[in-house]
Amino acid sequence: MDPVIADCGVYENGRRVSGRISLDRAAEAAHSTSGFVWVGLQDPTAEDIAVVADAFGLPPLAVQDAVHAHQRPKLNVYDDVVFMVLKPVRYVDHEEVVDVSEIALFLGRNFVVTVRHGRSDVLGRVRAELDRGGSELVSHGPKAVLYRTADMVVDGYEEAITSITEDIDEIESQVFGTDEDDHAERIYKLKREVAEFRRAVLPLAAPLQRLADGLIPGIDSAAAPYFRDVHDHALRASDAIEGHDRLLSDVLQADLARVGVRQSKIAVRQNEDMRRISAWAAIALAPTAIAGIYGMNFEFMPLLTSRYGYFVILAVIGGVCWILYRLFRRSDWL
Amino acid sequence: MDPVIADCGVYENGRRVSGRISLDRAAEAAHSTSGFVWVGLQDPTAEDIAVVADAFGLPPLAVQDAVHAHQRPKLNVYDDVVFMVLKPVRYVDHEEVVDVSEIALFLGRNFVVTVRHGRSDVLGRVRAELDRGGSELVSHGPKAVLYRTADMVVDGYEEAITSITEDIDEIESQVFGTDEDDHAERIYKLKREVAEFRRAVLPLAAPLQRLADGLIPGIDSAAAPYFRDVHDHALRASDAIEGHDRLLSDVLQADLARVGVRQSKIAVRQNEDMRRISAWAAIALAPTAIAGIYGMNFEFMPLLTSRYGYFVILAVIGGVCWILYRLFRRSDWL
Amino acid sequence: MDPVIADCGVYENGRRVSGRISLDRAAEAAHSTSGFVWVGLQDPTAEDIAVVADAFGLPPLAVQDAVHAHQRPKLNVYDDVVFMVLKPVRYVDHEEVVDVSEIALFLGRNFVVTVRHGRSDVLGRVRAELDRGGSELVSHGPKAVLYRTADMVVDGYEEAITSITEDIDEIESQVFGTDEDDHAERIYKLKREVAEFRRAVLPLAAPLQRLADGLIPGIDSAAAPYFRDVHDHALRASDAIEGHDRLLSDVLQADLARVGVRQSKIAVRQNEDMRRISAWAAIALAPTAIAGIYGMNFEFMPLLTSRYGYFVILAVIGGVCWILYRLFRRSDWL
Amino acid sequence: MDPVIADCGVYENGRRVSGRISLDRAAEAAHSTSGFVWVGLQDPTAEDIAVVADAFGLPPLAVQDAVHAHQRPKLNVYDDVVFMVLKPVRYVDHEEVVDVSEIALFLGRNFVVTVRHGRSDVLGRVRAELDRGGSELVSHGPKAVLYRTADMVVDGYEEAITSITEDIDEIESQVFGTDEDDHAERIYKLKREVAEFRRAVLPLAAPLQRLADGLIPGIDSAAAPYFRDVHDHALRASDAIEGHDRLLSDVLQADLARVGVRQSKIAVRQNEDMRRISAWAAIALAPTAIAGIYGMNFEFMPLLTSRYGYFVILAVIGGVCWILYRLFRRSDWL
Amino acid sequence: MDPVIADCGVYENGRRVSGRISLDRAAEAAHSTSGFVWVGLQDPTAEDIAVVADAFGLPPLAVQDAVHAHQRPKLNVYDDVVFMVLKPVRYVDHEEVVDVSEIALFLGRNFVVTVRHGRSDVLGRVRAELDRGGSELVSHGPKAVLYRTADMVVDGYEEAITSITEDIDEIESQVFGTDEDDHAERIYKLKREVAEFRRAVLPLAAPLQRLADGLIPGIDSAAAPYFRDVHDHALRASDAIEGHDRLLSDVLQADLARVGVRQSKIAVRQNEDMRRISAWAAIALAPTAIAGIYGMNFEFMPLLTSRYGYFVILAVIGGVCWILYRLFRRSDWL
Repeated sequence: MDPVIADCGVYENGRRVSGRISLDRAAEAAHSTSGFVWVGLQDPTAEDIAVVADAFGLPPLAVQDAVHAHQRPKLNVYDDVVFMVLKPVRYVDHEEVVDVSEIALFLGRNFVVTVRHGRSDVLGRVRAELDRGGSELVSHGPKAVLYRTADMVVDGYEEAITSITEDIDEIESQVFGTDEDDHAERIYKLKREVAEFRRAVLPLAAPLQRLADGLIPGIDSAAAPYFRDVHDHALRASDAIEGHDRLLSDVLQADLARVGVRQSKIAVRQNEDMRRISAWAAIALAPTAIAGIYGMNFEFMPLLTSRYGYFVILAVIGGVCWILYRLFRRSDWL
Repeated sequence: MDPVIADCGVYENGRRVSGRISLDRAAEAAHSTSGFVWVGLQDPTAEDIAVVADAFGLPPLAVQDAVHAHQRPKLNVYDDVVFMVLKPVRYVDHEEVVDVSEIALFLGRNFVVTVRHGRSDVLGRVRAELDRGGSELVSHGPKAVLYRTADMVVDGYEEAITSITEDIDEIESQVFGTDEDDHAERIYKLKREVAEFRRAVLPLAAPLQRLADGLIPGIDSAAAPYFRDVHDHALRASDAIEGHDRLLSDVLQADLARVGVRQSKIAVRQNEDMRRISAWAAIALAPTAIAGIYGMNFEFMPLLTSRYGYFVILAVIGGVCWILYRLFRRSDWL
Repeated sequence: MDPVIADCGVYENGRRVSGRISLDRAAEAAHSTSGFVWVGLQDPTAEDIAVVADAFGLPPLAVQDAVHAHQRPKLNVYDDVVFMVLKPVRYVDHEEVVDVSEIALFLGRNFVVTVRHGRSDVLGRVRAELDRGGSELVSHGPKAVLYRTADMVVDGYEEAITSITEDIDEIESQVFGTDEDDHAERIYKLKREVAEFRRAVLPLAAPLQRLADGLIPGIDSAAAPYFRDVHDHALRASDAIEGHDRLLSDVLQADLARVGVRQSKIAVRQNEDMRRISAWAAIALAPTAIAGIYGMNFEFMPLLTSRYGYFVILAVIGGVCWILYRLFRRSDWL
Repeated sequence: MDPVIADCGVYENGRRVSGRISLDRAAEAAHSTSGFVWVGLQDPTAEDIAVVADAFGLPPLAVQDAVHAHQRPKLNVYDDVVFMVLKPVRYVDHEEVVDVSEIALFLGRNFVVTVRHGRSDVLGRVRAELDRGGSELVSHGPKAVLYRTADMVVDGYEEAITSITEDIDEIESQVFGTDEDDHAERIYKLKREVAEFRRAVLPLAAPLQRLADGLIPGIDSAAAPYFRDVHDHALRASDAIEGHDRLLSDVLQADLARVGVRQSKIAVRQNEDMRRISAWAAIALAPTAIAGIYGMNFEFMPLLTSRYGYFVILAVIGGVCWILYRLFRRSDWL
Repeated sequence: MDPVIADCGVYENGRRVSGRISLDRAAEAAHSTSGFVWVGLQDPTAEDIAVVADAFGLPPLAVQDAVHAHQRPKLNVYDDVVFMVLKPVRYVDHEEVVDVSEIALFLGRNFVVTVRHGRSDVLGRVRAELDRGGSELVSHGPKAVLYRTADMVVDGYEEAITSITEDIDEIESQVFGTDEDDHAERIYKLKREVAEFRRAVLPLAAPLQRLADGLIPGIDSAAAPYFRDVHDHALRASDAIEGHDRLLSDVLQADLARVGVRQSKIAVRQNEDMRRISAWAAIALAPTAIAGIYGMNFEFMPLLTSRYGYFVILAVIGGVCWILYRLFRRSDWL
């Protein structure tokens, strides 16, 4: 069996009634079952998906979008197929990277075709939930798959947000702490990740709104409150992401400024040292100058022949140094 | 009785007609009373609330949201229950922290179930008001509880805003005053609190608008002006919070810049000192150099044997120092 | 008569037909007159206004808002009363402060109740205009009072804007001039005032729009063009205020940067001085060193006994100093 | 004839059928002609315009706005008169000033009254176009005048934008070039002019939209595509102006930062000089110190009496200087 | 044949049925064919296009817009012609320049007239696709040409975005790397290019939305999903461009700050050197001063005549130097 097909099963009367079946049998089952068939593809090529598209009559434009990842979250309605793109995220904490993957869902009356790009485990968890049975979800058919997937994707947003909040807290305490490092790069990179996160979340509000308003054909209004709930959570995620973005802007500005201030403080300390050294040097120049004068070789110089001249001059030198020292202290140079 | 149940009473004909009753009796009373029953829960677990949800037929999705705090303010209408989330805030002045709690209300035809997370005293004050009687509010049933709660929550916003305004005033006078400290951390943290505050307030406008427009089934248009009033106040709070946020951005920028300037001023003062010390040292070098020359041991040097040579040179040294001193003064170096 | 009642008069057939009458007679007259009664209150307490509210049947929520100043500009329609809040401003030029006051108007079919908080003279001027007569305004009843008040309030905005524009021009010429001061505080404070101004003006657009569209019951569409005109002017004021705010942001940024640059320029000048002093000191070290060598007491030293040794060395010293001087000049150090 | 009346003529059957006629005859002609009358006023006082307003029955509020310049671009519909305000701009390149003037147009069924404030030549050019004849425009009556005026005003915006783009290009190459000047003032002032420009252009989109949608009574939908075209161009101008504003913000930030960096570079160069001078001075201190030691007057000092002592010490001095020189070179201080 | 006519052919029954024909025959064919005629012009003058406009009855205003390039992306509907302007971009990587060209399309019932300004190859590729046949596109007539063109233009946006993303990645690693250069100019210029890019993309969303909603007469709703797809991609491009713009703002700010910090670090290193040199010089002053004292010529000085005086003083000098050295080391000055 093709490895791009993650799974392929029939759900009927609220539970899974088949193992992993072949694509042909799945297409057949989709016509005969009162339940629905779920075909899950992962990272399919255009050829892989063409077979499935053919078997289930998927709209070609949507199929193209499902092959080329990097879509915007969106919801398009075709004649009898609803096509939705979701972008689950995973926050890889130790690298501070938001890993955005992509899920495309085709919802027909009796089938769901899901296409996954990237490493999201959302579809796997939804399938596990369904296979486990017990929940009445399965009996609601394809739209239940859509609901559970969207719900888990949005829950994943909140987990990512929590982790990012913690990282921002950590950054804050570093920036405003005694830490001497420059955090600009880290902040900037997290900001970039948050921006990518935002691109995955913000466009999702409009499609969820339409689902919550019960405006999508084939998804009856009984499902609306469920999508309303997902929509509320998506809005909350958007709010939080916007908030993070703004916080990071502020903390980046603060960090850049503080690094500058820290440099200035070092310079101020260095200048103080220089002033102190210079002041001592200036004091040392006094004996040199005075002694120099009494080292001149004039024949006639007072004091030179005096018995106490030497001691007088030593005292003068000491006095001058003392006075200079006092002056410099008073000026706060020493 | 379960400690998560804060209170549970029956209101009829405009006043409270029961003490704290059990949940079973409350559910019963909700069916039989012409008034309404109020069940108040605090920090309930999923199990706690399940019992109440079951007794009153609360919509499961809303119940889930009520258990997990950290919702956005919102208003969802289910078949016969209106569900609203409000986020009261309390500004803890000495820590400059905005403490956001959460209140969820389920409004049925004859009952109100309130769920409180965090330390807000709003519900307690509403209940006290109702219990006190005298007000005709009680006779308006569940929607009166919603109105009073929303009104008090929004009044609480205005109190918090007033306190924050005072703190910003204080910060301003420090930043632009003679205070030498760096206020970046304080400003940044207050900005973060204001951002959280905003997340509690801004999304509230839309639900209140719907209430003010009388669009919520079960809340008749007679109540609309009351919610219009709350809506006006919520908008005012939003305006003020946005204003605070912008002010804090400006004052942060000013603070960061001023800290830099303050450092520069210190450097300028230090440089002046260095220039003065160096200038004095330069003056002191003159006698050293001249005396050095007359300290050379050449046999044939003019002046050495002269009677007044020594004094001539002393005068020369004095003159050179004086000239240097004048030059340096003229250059403003001394 | 109660001092909080500024005036109380009856207007009929296009002119004032009474002096200042008592509140009881006013309420009576409001029922009997074909014109209208105007009751003007200033800074009333809840008790003061309760009497008036009772006499004229004012909606309690609006009355509450009228007592507590600090409302947003707004327009609420009650059953038979229109309630509007306006926020006149006055720019106190010598303090660069925007003084925001508040006017609340209750418009009934045959009465106007106005409540004033703060020092605005708008209501006084409207009343003077009406009392003067001659204008056909009076015959249009309460809505004419609303129109004239709103018009004068918005005209007041434009006056304030003109004054602020002048102050910004002054700030600009200072920031970009030779002025050495730091204008950050002044700019910041003006920015804060402009922000408060904005809060008074921006929310006014929506109510004026509704009036201009003739959507307010009791204010017939014949008045719409008048309110359209006020609305246009309010929008212009909003544009100008937004422009001011942006200009002030830019000029604040420029000012902060320029103060930094100015400090750097001082540092550069100081560094030049230091370099010059050091260069001279370095030159002075040459004779000291050379002379020191010939001051050594070796018995056998060439030149010492030579007749011209002294002059040779003097020439060497001079030459070395000259060369150093030339070198330092070439390096632009002197 | 009144100098405030720029021209006054009758247009019929697609061409001008009168010279400059008096106001009375114009008003008369407006009633009798199958074409239309155009009265052009420039900088009229309230009295000047009152006569015209009276003759043509212009709406008083609009007349007031036409007298007081400094309106926002707008379009108001009165019973049988359409009133539009346009704000032509002219970019005075050598002063880098956006000169905003104002044109008010009153369009009746058979007349156009235009009021011009400031130095725009748009109306003159429209009139010249009409007088020249040949175009079928004239036969479309007043709305053709409106179209041509709006079209030329918006064309003028594009010319101004082109000139401003060139100035921004010039500023960019200066800021990022080797130019040592500070361009903050120039950038700031251009930004202010662009802000004024924006205030003239942005509010124009809404009125043009209404004209393009054919929503203005008296301006039939056949004219809509023409106004749609002007609207498109106005939007393009808005886009460009917004773009300019953002570019100028960026370039201002870059300029301010670069001036700071330039100052720092000067400081770095100066510090290098200082280090070099100090290093040389430090080297010069070695001979001074060593020679000083051998200049001491002790009776018993080794080497002094040695025949080669002097040369040994000279060699030592030279060696020490050489070592210091090598060390300083290695540390990159020389 | 006129060189401004790139090509001119007839498409019928899903394939091209003519070679390059003359304009006259094309206009004729447009009336007789069941397919459609495509006339492609490149950089036409007003005269060139007038001939075509005449032959196909193109709306004059649209024709004017097609001649003057520098339009906004837009879609205007005339009586029986749809006019659309698209702005393809090409990112010239080695110059980091976004090259924006312009395509105008006139869609009639049986003809397409395309006008190209600049170097886009989009129209050529669409024509090649059609000429190649095989695709069922041709049978959908003019609107298929519009779809393919819009689709390729938007695909081109995504290519450009990918290249810009790579350049931004490169800039990031340079700014946060060890690279000592200032990247402000590069970042600023790329930001300017992105701004121009945005002006080409953002206004395209509204016309595509109208096409996707099937609101354009003559373009049946069967085509809507195709344009919906293009619209989705255009939105994604807009998102990405906005994201780029914000990233570049952040990285510009970071770069400007880091250049400043780098300068400060150099200054700190220089100051350290200066401190070290000064400290050594201060140490060297000690022997000079002490030796100077013992070089004085007093007759009576203790120690001078002592046999070990010289050595005692040498030891003193050595000791003082050692103590100074230890002190300076302890202060971290050496």
